[in-house]
Amino acid sequence: MRLKNHIEVPSADVTMEGAAGCKVRWLIGERDDAPNFAMREFEVAPGGHTPKHFHDYEHEIYVLGGTGVIVDGSEERPLAAGDVVLVAPNDVHQFRNTGSETLRFLCLIPNSAAGRNVTVVPECGLEREA
Amino acid sequence: MRLKNHIEVPSADVTMEGAAGCKVRWLIGERDDAPNFAMREFEVAPGGHTPKHFHDYEHEIYVLGGTGVIVDGSEERPLAAGDVVLVAPNDVHQFRNTGSETLRFLCLIPNSAAGRNVTVVPECGLEREA
Repeated sequence: MRLKNHIEVPSADVTMEGAAGCKVRWLIGERDDAPNFAMREFEVAPGGHTPKHFHDYEHEIYVLGGTGVIVDGSEERPLAAGDVVLVAPNDVHQFRNTGSETLRFLCLIPNSAAGRNVTVVPECGLEREA
Repeated sequence: MRLKNHIEVPSADVTMEGAAGCKVRWLIGERDDAPNFAMREFEVAPGGHTPKHFHDYEHEIYVLGGTGVIVDGSEERPLAAGDVVLVAPNDVHQFRNTGSETLRFLCLIPNSAAGRNVTVVPECGLEREA
């Protein structure tokens, strides 16, 4: 049995193209010899977002705190604490923090995701002329 | 993509031998076509506990709120919000709420756990003469 508090796990910036203000902790992962799936915790700062992207494996998500939206293809759906999301393989998705507090969520993935391709979707029109 | 709030999911009493004051919501499971693993949320009332048990698949746990202990074999280890536990296959384990609020935690299992054997460990000495 392995027991730790989430704050003991190092937090790293998410450096994927299209990410802004995102940090991740790998709470349970390969180093823990988890047999089937990994547990990560994401923190998205106000105004920040994950990449708009898709991949051929699922996410299972539980929102711990904060408010925001999940982009579901071309639609935005509101997110708040206690919301649960199954992102199916190849669903285009993105998390955006639209509130004033950190958006925090767990996001679990199968071990088979390691090394799999992730496709970032261009976000036309998000940048505006100064 | 499937999105819901945890309170929309029906809560059922845990009726396994050795459980007391436990409820479970299957937040993401077979009905959602989750490809690899299931997300459940447990609520243990003050004084309540899950069975002391083991099985040949893992748990990945995130404590959402409340206080208690996890029994790790013959040892009791404290639990509080933000604690993360990997219960390895065949680890004897039990959750006990030792606080005054509901102990709430997520507990994820692989889909391969369906129909697998669970062994409840007798708890000698817990019942006392009236």
